[in-house]
Amino acid sequence: QIVAALQAAVGVQQAQGPKVVITAGPTREPIDPVRYISNHSSGKMGYALAAAAQALGCQVTLVSGPTQLACPSGVTRVDVESAEQMLAACLSEVAQTDIFIAAAAVADYRLAEVAVHKLKKDQSQQGLTLNLVENPDIVATIAQHQQRPALVVGFAAETQKVQAYALAKLQRKGLDMMIANDVSNPEIGFHSDHNAVTLITKDRQQAFDIQSKKELAHQLMTEILQAYTNQESLSNRE
Amino acid sequence: QIVAALQAAVGVQQAQGPKVVITAGPTREPIDPVRYISNHSSGKMGYALAAAAQALGCQVTLVSGPTQLACPSGVTRVDVESAEQMLAACLSEVAQTDIFIAAAAVADYRLAEVAVHKLKKDQSQQGLTLNLVENPDIVATIAQHQQRPALVVGFAAETQKVQAYALAKLQRKGLDMMIANDVSNPEIGFHSDHNAVTLITKDRQQAFDIQSKKELAHQLMTEILQAYTNQESLSNRE
Repeated sequence: QIVAALQAAVGVQQAQGPKVVITAGPTREPIDPVRYISNHSSGKMGYALAAAAQALGCQVTLVSGPTQLACPSGVTRVDVESAEQMLAACLSEVAQTDIFIAAAAVADYRLAEVAVHKLKKDQSQQGLTLNLVENPDIVATIAQHQQRPALVVGFAAETQKVQAYALAKLQRKGLDMMIANDVSNPEIGFHSDHNAVTLITKDRQQAFDIQSKKELAHQLMTEILQAYTNQESLSNRE
Repeated sequence: QIVAALQAAVGVQQAQGPKVVITAGPTREPIDPVRYISNHSSGKMGYALAAAAQALGCQVTLVSGPTQLACPSGVTRVDVESAEQMLAACLSEVAQTDIFIAAAAVADYRLAEVAVHKLKKDQSQQGLTLNLVENPDIVATIAQHQQRPALVVGFAAETQKVQAYALAKLQRKGLDMMIANDVSNPEIGFHSDHNAVTLITKDRQQAFDIQSKKELAHQLMTEILQAYTNQESLSNRE
């Protein structure tokens, strides 16, 4: 009671809901000190989910690759660049995470070797070969972790066979829920403020029509919190 | 006179100085619909040069890769993504260009083939090889063009042997002036608002100490316009 009174006095409002970790934005995989491989993710969907989760009473940590977005009010942001840095940040939170949402567009590959100095054009040859190795699969690593969060949600950005690829990923990675969208549609592409998605679990598929990422995030977070509550009440009954 | 009166009446001020084309920002070279190779250029130096040139009475076109910067007032901006698009935009201006300044951090390489659909991770293999081919050298192409602008200025962002590499580039590409900086120094790196450079011609080297990119741009544009005027008076004497 003293703590609560003190918190009220200094204006601190302690979120009482589940601890949610959300990844957002692209990652950047360095080639050398000036060049990198990245992707067109704006981070808007992940940031909108973080804002929605915070508004719904969750304690939210946003693990974010490089974006141009402001951190939503009341959300703790951890800034990272590469996939390996993002995984390390997520693992350092995993024991305290109730719901993990992987909204970042993590690079699937990184350079096998990063050059210390800027690569010079070789006058004797015309091209360059970059050897890439697979990055760790962050959402699969979290889903298969021995301190696995109660609910693990992935995203699938596809350009073809969207539902089929997304369901295959859900099963292969051991996720509870997958949010799939078709990034070949320019109206809902990475930099759009709108999105249309399909929410996929092993039992059902639910389509969300095109709408603002903010509205969509609120609906998706409501679904995610419902699934979390159902799962918690099931595990309490066991 | 009627035109001048009309222009005055509607508030149009026609720049009387030389026509300056400035490239700025990074380029993005697509790997597939979602992934690309890019670099850490912020575009700040090129945008500052465009603003300085406009303030000094030049007619300025800014050919810009993806940046987060606003176009300086009175400057015409042409937006591009890849190196090939940037070259095409510069070539379409070359016949009317008096001074060409290549401040963009153009990707040296692009993918030999761009995938139409998002590349899928191949479950049977661990890595991926990207085959890159050299991009056209925009500043060298302009410097060796039969409608070559009177003054062609390049930038060299190096992490080692800065002056030596920059002078070699000036000679190999046939430029009039090179502005070199050491991007391994984090204080003057790509996203900094400050820069320190060496202005290099075949005859001299002049160091500009660390200062705001805005102030530096004004000093550099003054040097560039002086060099342009000297060259024009020389060629008129011939």
